[in-house]
Amino acid sequence: MATIKDVAKEAGVSIATVSRVINKSPKASKKSIESVNAAMQKLGYRPNAAAKALVSQSTNTVGVLVGDVSDPFFGTLVKAVDTEAHKDNKHILVGNGYHNEDEERRAIELLINNRCDALVVHSKALPDQELVDYAKEVKGLVIINRHIPEIASRCISLDNHKGAYLATEYLIRHGHKKIACIASNHEIEDADERVEGYLAALKDNNISLPKSYVEHSEPSSDGGEAAMTNLLTKSLDIDAVVAYNDYMAAGALSIAMENGIQVPEKMSIIGFDDGLIARYTHPSLTTVRYPIQMMAEKATRLALSLAKSEPVENEPVMFSPTLVRRDSVSKLAG
Amino acid sequence: MATIKDVAKEAGVSIATVSRVINKSPKASKKSIESVNAAMQKLGYRPNAAAKALVSQSTNTVGVLVGDVSDPFFGTLVKAVDTEAHKDNKHILVGNGYHNEDEERRAIELLINNRCDALVVHSKALPDQELVDYAKEVKGLVIINRHIPEIASRCISLDNHKGAYLATEYLIRHGHKKIACIASNHEIEDADERVEGYLAALKDNNISLPKSYVEHSEPSSDGGEAAMTNLLTKSLDIDAVVAYNDYMAAGALSIAMENGIQVPEKMSIIGFDDGLIARYTHPSLTTVRYPIQMMAEKATRLALSLAKSEPVENEPVMFSPTLVRRDSVSKLAG
Repeated sequence: MATIKDVAKEAGVSIATVSRVINKSPKASKKSIESVNAAMQKLGYRPNAAAKALVSQSTNTVGVLVGDVSDPFFGTLVKAVDTEAHKDNKHILVGNGYHNEDEERRAIELLINNRCDALVVHSKALPDQELVDYAKEVKGLVIINRHIPEIASRCISLDNHKGAYLATEYLIRHGHKKIACIASNHEIEDADERVEGYLAALKDNNISLPKSYVEHSEPSSDGGEAAMTNLLTKSLDIDAVVAYNDYMAAGALSIAMENGIQVPEKMSIIGFDDGLIARYTHPSLTTVRYPIQMMAEKATRLALSLAKSEPVENEPVMFSPTLVRRDSVSKLAG
Repeated sequence: MATIKDVAKEAGVSIATVSRVINKSPKASKKSIESVNAAMQKLGYRPNAAAKALVSQSTNTVGVLVGDVSDPFFGTLVKAVDTEAHKDNKHILVGNGYHNEDEERRAIELLINNRCDALVVHSKALPDQELVDYAKEVKGLVIINRHIPEIASRCISLDNHKGAYLATEYLIRHGHKKIACIASNHEIEDADERVEGYLAALKDNNISLPKSYVEHSEPSSDGGEAAMTNLLTKSLDIDAVVAYNDYMAAGALSIAMENGIQVPEKMSIIGFDDGLIARYTHPSLTTVRYPIQMMAEKATRLALSLAKSEPVENEPVMFSPTLVRRDSVSKLAG
């Protein structure tokens, strides 16, 4: 493989000149740029990204930490970051944190050590203070899907409480009062906020239900099946279900159907996320849209601006979920 | 931020010694390793990955090119690469090629310029020769989901022909003879190979059908709907459908149902991929499993071994699809 020395020789210039051309130094003359580029092309020389990074102290890389890239929710997040990064001629480094404290820490350290100048971090397991410390260390670090008051202007979050409130109120407006809640048993704030939103909507509509109407399980299709089975086993009088996400809603849906409870005729079910599967279930899921693409685009632009110390617009950074009407909710038959 | 100079001063050693410790040189003494590590920790000094890469000519990074990371198929591929890379204490750089020649080239160039020592490439748009050239340049480059005879030992591919043959023969075994094929209109070899597998199965069973039984469209749910609508519009006598992928099968399924054709009672439909949605449709999809996780793991291990010039096992690199029985196929009512 050709070296920088070979390029210098071929172009008839010094190694320092080749270095200046590669690093786009303003000191490089037009003539030397041309001869060096011609020599690099002829010899098949690739300017080493590591060497360039060392000079500029930047790798032109946007780091992104997600829970698990094989989940389409995070796939959509990563794609949005990639799309925005490309507009700035940057590429992305991806880390998976699996909602695990050690994994998240390890992934963030790797991204920082690789001199990502902008970082979009979806962290659910690390303590607030640790993220605050990272944010202090890396000026282009932005948190997505989490609100930390101390660094609020660097957090892009979703109003989970509002989303669950919307979903529950939508069911109430359709005449439902016996509304069960299928919640996530993951210890992340989203889980608590959504249960709180559900409870707030009940309270504001003077509906009082025993605690047994809330069932916690894994936020997966299997978890939704288990939770729905538990609710049915408890012989509760239920006419509607608010689920933590679309997977749990789909699981609850299939258990209801298997037990002869037609959805939406006998029971309404509402999901959360408006993910890939929501349109494929039967009936298709009425759900709460999680604007993850828009949020990830915003987070990336903010991270890129902060990394370049550009002035940042003082836009709101708390996004609102909206309702997507499909076929899994109907009016309660009087 | 602390510099390498500060660390040397704090540790009471030379900068060269600090560099040796950071780069894990065998020349570093145990005593200097301890004092340098203590100094780095005290000062919060981060060894610069770019500087380390420059010394070792490796970035400890595995590059992965996929079509579109927001598609769960590619999400699963990326996760499998990440999991294998982590076992080797490496992390991943991800590029999206969107099945577009320019985008794929740009992404591969970026990955190579970032000195990825191992590369897993899912390229559908670049010509064979260009990939052969890249493979010559980067010894740790492996192609996934494509077979190029010239570099066959570096290609991990799937027998698409066999998959479509399996699916079609499965329908024939269930008494179906009027089998339509919903194909992809993307100009990638998978599309052709699957149509050929379908035609071969028909031929081997002495079934002859007009060309109008093959309908091409976008490989998406919308494309499946369009193709199924066209098939019905042509008034063809159809009792089963082989679809290019699960999305197309799901689209075909919903159009059949909307037109009062019960699946599987009146029409059997079979998908391809066994992707996320296959279990959520109603009826759930009988489909052909694409072992993308296993293939991606294999590709990553091969790429890592090749990058380190390790001896490589001479295992077969063509994977076989298998049939997944669910609820969208039934025996033709006599």
